[in-house]
Amino acid sequence: MKNANLLFLLFILLIHSQCQPPNPPEIKEEQNLNVERPEYTIVIHGGAGSISRGSIDTAKEKMYADSLNFALNIGEEILKNGGSALDAVEQTIRFMEDCPLFNSGKGAVFTHEGTNELDASIMDGKNEDAGAVGGIKTVKHPITAARAVMEKSPHVFLAREGAETFSKQNGLEQVDNSYFFTQKNYDRLQNILEKEKANLQGYDPSIEQENPDWKYGTVGCAVLDKAGNLAAGTSTGGMTNKRWSRIGDSPIIGAGTYANNTTCAISSTGHGEYFIRYAVAYDISARMEYGKQSFQEAANEVIMKKLVEKGGSGGIIGVDKYGNVAMPFNTSGMFRGYAKPGKRVVKMFSE
Amino acid sequence: MKNANLLFLLFILLIHSQCQPPNPPEIKEEQNLNVERPEYTIVIHGGAGSISRGSIDTAKEKMYADSLNFALNIGEEILKNGGSALDAVEQTIRFMEDCPLFNSGKGAVFTHEGTNELDASIMDGKNEDAGAVGGIKTVKHPITAARAVMEKSPHVFLAREGAETFSKQNGLEQVDNSYFFTQKNYDRLQNILEKEKANLQGYDPSIEQENPDWKYGTVGCAVLDKAGNLAAGTSTGGMTNKRWSRIGDSPIIGAGTYANNTTCAISSTGHGEYFIRYAVAYDISARMEYGKQSFQEAANEVIMKKLVEKGGSGGIIGVDKYGNVAMPFNTSGMFRGYAKPGKRVVKMFSE
Repeated sequence: MKNANLLFLLFILLIHSQCQPPNPPEIKEEQNLNVERPEYTIVIHGGAGSISRGSIDTAKEKMYADSLNFALNIGEEILKNGGSALDAVEQTIRFMEDCPLFNSGKGAVFTHEGTNELDASIMDGKNEDAGAVGGIKTVKHPITAARAVMEKSPHVFLAREGAETFSKQNGLEQVDNSYFFTQKNYDRLQNILEKEKANLQGYDPSIEQENPDWKYGTVGCAVLDKAGNLAAGTSTGGMTNKRWSRIGDSPIIGAGTYANNTTCAISSTGHGEYFIRYAVAYDISARMEYGKQSFQEAANEVIMKKLVEKGGSGGIIGVDKYGNVAMPFNTSGMFRGYAKPGKRVVKMFSE
Repeated sequence: MKNANLLFLLFILLIHSQCQPPNPPEIKEEQNLNVERPEYTIVIHGGAGSISRGSIDTAKEKMYADSLNFALNIGEEILKNGGSALDAVEQTIRFMEDCPLFNSGKGAVFTHEGTNELDASIMDGKNEDAGAVGGIKTVKHPITAARAVMEKSPHVFLAREGAETFSKQNGLEQVDNSYFFTQKNYDRLQNILEKEKANLQGYDPSIEQENPDWKYGTVGCAVLDKAGNLAAGTSTGGMTNKRWSRIGDSPIIGAGTYANNTTCAISSTGHGEYFIRYAVAYDISARMEYGKQSFQEAANEVIMKKLVEKGGSGGIIGVDKYGNVAMPFNTSGMFRGYAKPGKRVVKMFSE
């Protein structure tokens, strides 16, 4: 009879253990809390697209890797010295805007009309303040214009001539639109225009994706600083052959850029129209805030599942408040990298 | 021994029932499902702001009420006849754009430079497609331009001259910018410019709020049609005295406008910069999708709590997929109304 009682008890324990409710989703956040937050974290991207070992020769691969490393150096130096997330984002992106390898600033692609029209935005996770510029042609560093809009105007988003006037009034460096000329981007436009002539459907910006090395060359940076503040920024020339003063996701807060100290900081690169319709950057933050997903889970679900189902190609880079990095993309590659104390990663291909 | 076995079985059943996982949060959705969905629902706003019985005389009050009722009639007629949510949104807003009482189309307020620059957007909840225009000066019906961007271009967002060119190429009705002149809005600008001269801090668009009858006069419409599709649209002249080609939240998908058949359709009115930074329209949808809040709960939390804490004034109108209406605002009033079969509400004050 003693044995029967023991069996009875064991049986109950077994039943009890089987019908425990599943682990609450908060467990993931706790896991993050248990990880020691790094002193700082900086993550960058130089655009997603058709980037595979076959499509880039070794010399070019080294140029991209060197540039990504140099960009990380700039931001890391600021962060090591206790600089702000905002400063690190701005200065890192300024370097990438000056680098003709990336589609922003000096390396901006051409519009249908043969001009260069730049979009950028920045967001401060500390107070959720933000600034953005769309379709500007004369400002050397659009990311600095975006920051000036945030800090020196009562507005968030200024466009075209008005944004240029504002940037002049605030002493930002002006250039002639021809400063943004690069032969490779000009040739790329001519190539697309010729294809378009042969295309009975007329204007179709997706023609560019027939190019074996097409990419969304947008640049972006997301940072966690020593003070625990997050910030993110994005800068781009948009898509080659864009028309009618098209504005993409890069200057749209919640689509191309988002930062919030309670969740994460994100910069997007990809087919901007999808990133706008699905509010991609904010969606990741909302899944963390309301759905209790971890940053990586939320970023993966949006980029690798939702966007793939909807047909939107691209990726995001970002960092959460614990210093966790996510860099998912659904294209063949993405120029990307991150740095934390004692850790540096720079990648471009899927592996 | 038989009794012991029976007790044993009862005991196990008791334990088993006690450790069932709690009811899933979907319970709220089920409650909604039990309510019969109306055949159609249309909700509109004509802007939030300082709108109290003292600030509007009886004649004007009647004019506003008549216009809101007329706008609802237009949309309701389309919906009764089985028309699409998109058509109802576009046609209802076209009427409001023609009505000089509201700050959109004919009634648009003036920029700092004395021009009228219009923003609009539209979103189709069926496929989450969207279109938007920002800072256009020559298109009579910006909401129709937004719909043309959605349906006839590969882009989501076109700005200023480019958007105007696109609208001409698509045969949309063009007007000279002087068409948008109204004496009352011109006088309002002059009044603000004078105040600004006396203001040592210079440009400050919040000066307008010293006016006893200031309002964000944006118009918007959200619809559930007989087929169960949702759509939303927003159109505005922005804020009086806006500068530097400022773009507000109205053409930003996820801020001023959002529609998704799985959640709700929303149009915003308020201090646009806050609505952009907090991705207000998408935030409400995300709280429903990930936080399992009801539409009313989500809308109230964002407008009456989050925005109030952050200092952002305004409101939203919208309808969820079950036909539930929400119209929260944190200003003293909002021109608003809705119609379902057998039900019509038009209001402007807080009660």
